[in-house]
Amino acid sequence: MSRLLLNCDIGESFGAWTMGLDAEVMPHIDCANIACGFHAADPSIMRRTVALAVQHKVRIGAHPAYPDLVGFGRRSMACSAQEVEDMLLYQIGALDGICRAEGTRVSYVKPHGALYNDMMRQPELLRAVLRAVRLYDPSLPLMLMSVRDNSAAEALAAEQGVRLWFETFADRAYDAAGFLVARSQPGAVHHDSEQVIAQALALASGQTLTASDGSALLLRADSLCVHGDNAGSVAAVRRIREALDGLPA
Amino acid sequence: MSRLLLNCDIGESFGAWTMGLDAEVMPHIDCANIACGFHAADPSIMRRTVALAVQHKVRIGAHPAYPDLVGFGRRSMACSAQEVEDMLLYQIGALDGICRAEGTRVSYVKPHGALYNDMMRQPELLRAVLRAVRLYDPSLPLMLMSVRDNSAAEALAAEQGVRLWFETFADRAYDAAGFLVARSQPGAVHHDSEQVIAQALALASGQTLTASDGSALLLRADSLCVHGDNAGSVAAVRRIREALDGLPA
Amino acid sequence: MSRLLLNCDIGESFGAWTMGLDAEVMPHIDCANIACGFHAADPSIMRRTVALAVQHKVRIGAHPAYPDLVGFGRRSMACSAQEVEDMLLYQIGALDGICRAEGTRVSYVKPHGALYNDMMRQPELLRAVLRAVRLYDPSLPLMLMSVRDNSAAEALAAEQGVRLWFETFADRAYDAAGFLVARSQPGAVHHDSEQVIAQALALASGQTLTASDGSALLLRADSLCVHGDNAGSVAAVRRIREALDGLPA
Amino acid sequence: MSRLLLNCDIGESFGAWTMGLDAEVMPHIDCANIACGFHAADPSIMRRTVALAVQHKVRIGAHPAYPDLVGFGRRSMACSAQEVEDMLLYQIGALDGICRAEGTRVSYVKPHGALYNDMMRQPELLRAVLRAVRLYDPSLPLMLMSVRDNSAAEALAAEQGVRLWFETFADRAYDAAGFLVARSQPGAVHHDSEQVIAQALALASGQTLTASDGSALLLRADSLCVHGDNAGSVAAVRRIREALDGLPA
Repeated sequence: MSRLLLNCDIGESFGAWTMGLDAEVMPHIDCANIACGFHAADPSIMRRTVALAVQHKVRIGAHPAYPDLVGFGRRSMACSAQEVEDMLLYQIGALDGICRAEGTRVSYVKPHGALYNDMMRQPELLRAVLRAVRLYDPSLPLMLMSVRDNSAAEALAAEQGVRLWFETFADRAYDAAGFLVARSQPGAVHHDSEQVIAQALALASGQTLTASDGSALLLRADSLCVHGDNAGSVAAVRRIREALDGLPA
Repeated sequence: MSRLLLNCDIGESFGAWTMGLDAEVMPHIDCANIACGFHAADPSIMRRTVALAVQHKVRIGAHPAYPDLVGFGRRSMACSAQEVEDMLLYQIGALDGICRAEGTRVSYVKPHGALYNDMMRQPELLRAVLRAVRLYDPSLPLMLMSVRDNSAAEALAAEQGVRLWFETFADRAYDAAGFLVARSQPGAVHHDSEQVIAQALALASGQTLTASDGSALLLRADSLCVHGDNAGSVAAVRRIREALDGLPA
Repeated sequence: MSRLLLNCDIGESFGAWTMGLDAEVMPHIDCANIACGFHAADPSIMRRTVALAVQHKVRIGAHPAYPDLVGFGRRSMACSAQEVEDMLLYQIGALDGICRAEGTRVSYVKPHGALYNDMMRQPELLRAVLRAVRLYDPSLPLMLMSVRDNSAAEALAAEQGVRLWFETFADRAYDAAGFLVARSQPGAVHHDSEQVIAQALALASGQTLTASDGSALLLRADSLCVHGDNAGSVAAVRRIREALDGLPA
Repeated sequence: MSRLLLNCDIGESFGAWTMGLDAEVMPHIDCANIACGFHAADPSIMRRTVALAVQHKVRIGAHPAYPDLVGFGRRSMACSAQEVEDMLLYQIGALDGICRAEGTRVSYVKPHGALYNDMMRQPELLRAVLRAVRLYDPSLPLMLMSVRDNSAAEALAAEQGVRLWFETFADRAYDAAGFLVARSQPGAVHHDSEQVIAQALALASGQTLTASDGSALLLRADSLCVHGDNAGSVAAVRRIREALDGLPA
C-alpha cells in the first residue's frame, strides 16, 4: 500500500438529508474525515458512518467545524481562539464517544471548511486547534494543507508537541507559494484524469509539481484529499488508488 | 463525609445567558450533573464548568438530554431507542473531551429532564441509555430515580452490566409507590427546612420515610438531588451538607 | 381545471442538502406546502421555492412544524398549546415575509408531520393551530385530514371562524372510520397506478371509496395530497393531473 | 414628548433563560428593538415581548441578526448579500406574524450586533438590508448609526427608496469621524450620569458634541440607543427620559 494516505470527507448527511456516496468511496480510501454535528451529521449518522469505516478498516478522523449547519461550515465566523479550542474538544470527544461504541477511536483531526481556511491564515487559530488536539490526545496528528513553506505551521506544532500530516491535492493547480489556484482562475481544476493521476503519482513519489508560474514546486505530502460527492469523483478515487498501489513499495 | 452523595444540575448557562449559582453551590456538592449542549451549555460553558468542578474536587457526571434548547430538554420527544443511544454516546463523549482538557474524566451519567422521565417509564429507553453507558465505558454508573420497587431497573442494568446509583429527594413528598407527588398536589414540596433536613438524614441513614398515604417507605439512596438555582436553594444545600457531615461515619 | 386541488410538500431542502424534485413536480400541482425552517428549509431555500411557485402560479401554503431539524418534524414533541400557537404565528409570518419579496402571499396553512398528526388527535392542539391561523389572517384556510366524521374539527373551526380544506389520499387505503390504514398493514399503499387514478377520480367526483372492511366511505375532498420525492412519484402526479383535467367541469 | 426617540434592545431572553429588565425599561422608551429568534428569543418570548410593547404603546422594531444563538449574534459571519437579504425577510416576517396576533405591526428595522457592524462597513450588506426592508414594506424605516458623514448610507437608501432613522449614543465618546471610541480606549464610556444627560440633550436639540480630538461634531439624531440590561441602565433611561421630556416642544 502506498504511503500517501487518501483522505475523504465522509458522513456529511444530516437527519433526513443524504449527501455523498459514502458506501461507494469508503472501500478505496485510507482516512475518513467524519463530520461531528456542527456543519453536518447527527449522532445517528455519525454512528452509521463510523461503523462503515470500521468495516472497511479506514482510519477515522474528526472533522470539526464552526457551528453553522445552514452554511455547511463554509462561512467564516469570528470565533475567539478559546471558542475554537473548546468547540474542537467538544466535537472530537463526541465523535470519539461514537467510536467507542463501534470498538474504535478517533485517530487524527482535520478541521473543515472555513475553520480549515481560517486556521491556515491565522496563527492564533492554528495554535488553538493544536492546543485542543494536544489536550485531547497528544498522539493524534493534525491534518492541514501543505504549502511550499510549511515552517510556520511546523514551528507552532512543535511548540504544542503535535504531529502534522500535510495534505495535498491531485486535481488542483498550485501557485508558486504552494497555495491552490482559485477556482475562478482558468486551469484551477484538472479535469483530465491522466493529469490527476500524474499529479498524484508525483506527490506520492516526492517529485516536484509545476506551479502556475512555471516554477518547480516540491510539497511535503502525507495525504491526498479525494472526494466522494458523486459517481465521477468516486471513479477518480478508484483510478488514483490503483495508480498508487502500482508504485514500488 | 457522608456516603449519601449530593448531586446537582450544573453548567446550565448557554451562550450569553446565565443560569444557576454554580460557583456558590459547587463547594457543597459531591456530584455535578453537567449539561452537554443539547438542552443547555455550549463548549466554552462546559469548559468553565468542568474547571470549576475540578477546582472543588467534585465528581463530573454527564447530563445528556433530548435535542431541545428552546424547551430546556423538558419536552418529551418521540425519539427511537437507537436515536437515544446515539445521542447519549455523542453527549457523554463531548463532555469527556472537555474533561480531558482539564485533566479529568466523566465519572457517571444522569439523563436530564424529559429524557430522565421517559427512561423511568419506558423500559426500551432505559435499555438504550444503559447500552450507551456500557458501550462508552462500562465502569460508569447510571444515576436514576429510586422508587419503592427498583427491581425492573436493576434487572435491565444487570443485563447490560451497568451499575446504578439511585437518587432521592429531600424536599419532595413521595407517594406509596415511591414516586414524587405531583407538584400540583398540596404538600408536594417541603418548604420547611427542618423537614427537608430530617428527610435527608432519614435517607442517609437507611430509615423509612412516611409516604403520602401514611405508609412507611424505604428507599435505596445512593445520592440526594439538590438545587443551585437561587440563593435559597444554595442555603438549603449548605444546611443539608452540614447535617449529613454530622452523621457518624 | 378540477376543483380537487393537488397539494404537495415542497421546499424541503436545507442548506447544502437537496431533497425532492421541486422543479419537476411544481408545474403539475395547485398548492405547494412550503417548509418554514423548523423541520426543513432556510430563508434562501424558501425564497427560491416561493419564486418557483410564483412562476408556476401555484398557491403557497405555510407548512409549519415542530422545531426539529434532525428529526424532520416527524417526532412528536410535548409542546404546550400556547407554544404551538406561537410557533405557527412565527413560521407563517416568516414565510409570508419571503412571499412579499416575490410579490405574493401565503394563502393557506397545513401543519407538517408529527404536528399534523398530533393536531388530528388532540383537540387542544387543533384549537391552538386554528387560533394561530385566525390571529394571523382569518381568511386563510387550514388544510387537514378528511375522515368519515369531520364534525369535531368542523365545530372547532367554526368556533374560531376559520375555513377548513379537507385533504385526501389517492395512494393509500382507508379504514372504516376514514383514517389511513397503517403502512405496516398489507394493502396499505396502492402501488398500481390505475388504482391510484381511480381513487383520485372517485374522490374528485364525490363518489364513495371502499374502506378496508368493505364498507362504503364518503370523504369530503377539497384537496388531494401528492408527492414529489422521486421520479416515480412525479410521474404519478402527472397521471393524476391528466385524469382530473379530463373530468367534466 | 421629545422628538429624539429612545430605542432599546428588548426581548433577548431565550427559552428558559432570562436576560434584561424588559418590564422595567419598557415604560420609558419609544422604540423596542425585538429579537427575532436568530440571536435571541423564541416564538413564545417574542409573543410576550410584543404584548408588553403594545401595553406600553411602544413602537416595535424588528431586530434581525446572523443565525448564531451561541454567540448572541455578536460574531461576524461571512454570509452573502443574498443570504442576508433572505434572513432579514424571514425574521421581519416572523416578528410581524407575532405582532398580528397582538393587534400591531412591525414599524421599523434595526439589525443586531455583528450584522449591524458589518452593514455599517460593507455597502453591499447595507444594500442587502435595504432591499429586504423595501421588499417587505417600503414604508418601514431602517435604523442605523449616525456618523459625521452619512452621505454614503443616504445615497444607498435613496437608491432603494427606504427612509433612514439615525441613532446616536449618550453614554459613549465619539471620534472625529463620528464613530464610537473603542471601549478599550480611556474615556470611551461616560460613567457620569450628568455627562450622559448633557450629551442626550445636545443630541436632542441639534447642538454639536465634542469629539475625542476636540473637534466639534454635529450628528443627525433621530433616535438615542439606551439599555435595559440592569438596574443601573434602567435608572439611566429614566433620567434621560425625564431630561428629554423637559425640553421645549
